[in-house]
Amino acid sequence: MAHILITSGPTRQYLDPVRYLTNASSGRMGAALVEASLALGHKVTVVSGPVEVEYPAGARVVPVVSTEDMLTICREEFDSCDGLIGAAAPCDYRPVHVEPNKIAKTGQPLELHLIETDDIVATLGAEKGFRWVVGFALETEDHRLRALAKLERKHCDLIVSNSVSAMDSLDNEVEILNPAGTVLKQIAGSKRLVADEILAVITERLIR
Amino acid sequence: MAHILITSGPTRQYLDPVRYLTNASSGRMGAALVEASLALGHKVTVVSGPVEVEYPAGARVVPVVSTEDMLTICREEFDSCDGLIGAAAPCDYRPVHVEPNKIAKTGQPLELHLIETDDIVATLGAEKGFRWVVGFALETEDHRLRALAKLERKHCDLIVSNSVSAMDSLDNEVEILNPAGTVLKQIAGSKRLVADEILAVITERLIR
Repeated sequence: MAHILITSGPTRQYLDPVRYLTNASSGRMGAALVEASLALGHKVTVVSGPVEVEYPAGARVVPVVSTEDMLTICREEFDSCDGLIGAAAPCDYRPVHVEPNKIAKTGQPLELHLIETDDIVATLGAEKGFRWVVGFALETEDHRLRALAKLERKHCDLIVSNSVSAMDSLDNEVEILNPAGTVLKQIAGSKRLVADEILAVITERLIR
Repeated sequence: MAHILITSGPTRQYLDPVRYLTNASSGRMGAALVEASLALGHKVTVVSGPVEVEYPAGARVVPVVSTEDMLTICREEFDSCDGLIGAAAPCDYRPVHVEPNKIAKTGQPLELHLIETDDIVATLGAEKGFRWVVGFALETEDHRLRALAKLERKHCDLIVSNSVSAMDSLDNEVEILNPAGTVLKQIAGSKRLVADEILAVITERLIR
């Protein structure tokens, strides 16, 4: 059995105490992966952004808000884990300046200067050593090509490619790609069914 | 009895198909106001941004995503209503350009040009005629002064001033101000208790 680190949900990058950048990730795919992992007898640590879904009681859950927090916690937790499933959708841009008080409306345009946040899967992938890393790619065009580019850049052992339609949905439709660019499996159905199939591939190829 | 239009929850302003600006409004204060209104026998129409809370079956709920959508629906619905409680936290800035595909990371900063969205309460307040309008103000400093300025600018009959701590919380702590700047009531407690007290003030001063 393995100890699996699963990231889940969105993160938030605040502009001021009220407004933030985020995405519609619900944490449902992450929760399904936690359930599927526990069902196979694996130990699970979840690092999750703000979500409404409940994770199974059998997993240890560490809640975070920002991408920076998620990365810090993941680096700590990854030390004692055998592998990572990066199912979160971390906010990948953050404002250069965060205002301490709510930005008052002036009637004028607001220029927001954003920079990229550190990439969690890429960072852990570069430091993985003998551990395995499974990433997720969410693209609106050139799905397979972009997913494979992400797999390489992030040092992933497998990548799960899915579409924007997966976000905040009960179902998902994915392809699992290996570093050779081979489509190992195409899965469509409930997120729990998709999670079971992903865990089957991980168990066979990375844990066994 | 009155027909009350209640706005609730956050709205989203998308940059591309994945990323958006929003805030942590949960819709719980709106849902509590719906419950309190129904309990007094009023008819309720709710226009709500994306939330996880469930509204009571006795209310008609119109779901929306963006501030533009919320304003369009509210203008249609307000015609047949006696008053508005603006409990939503509409996203008040939107990107000038919305990218049709997910913005790909390039390693470079991203300059985001934002402009103000139309103010829903101010727009309905300017068009209210014999109808009443109750607004909400969420400020991080100078609460009472800024709330009163909002009341005037938005043509509100009453304004409810609360703090950022109310967001995504089960409780709230508010002050109700009238156009003279008088604090009519200070209320702290569960959102349902606060909603009952707000409805009591509205019923006494605006509906009775």
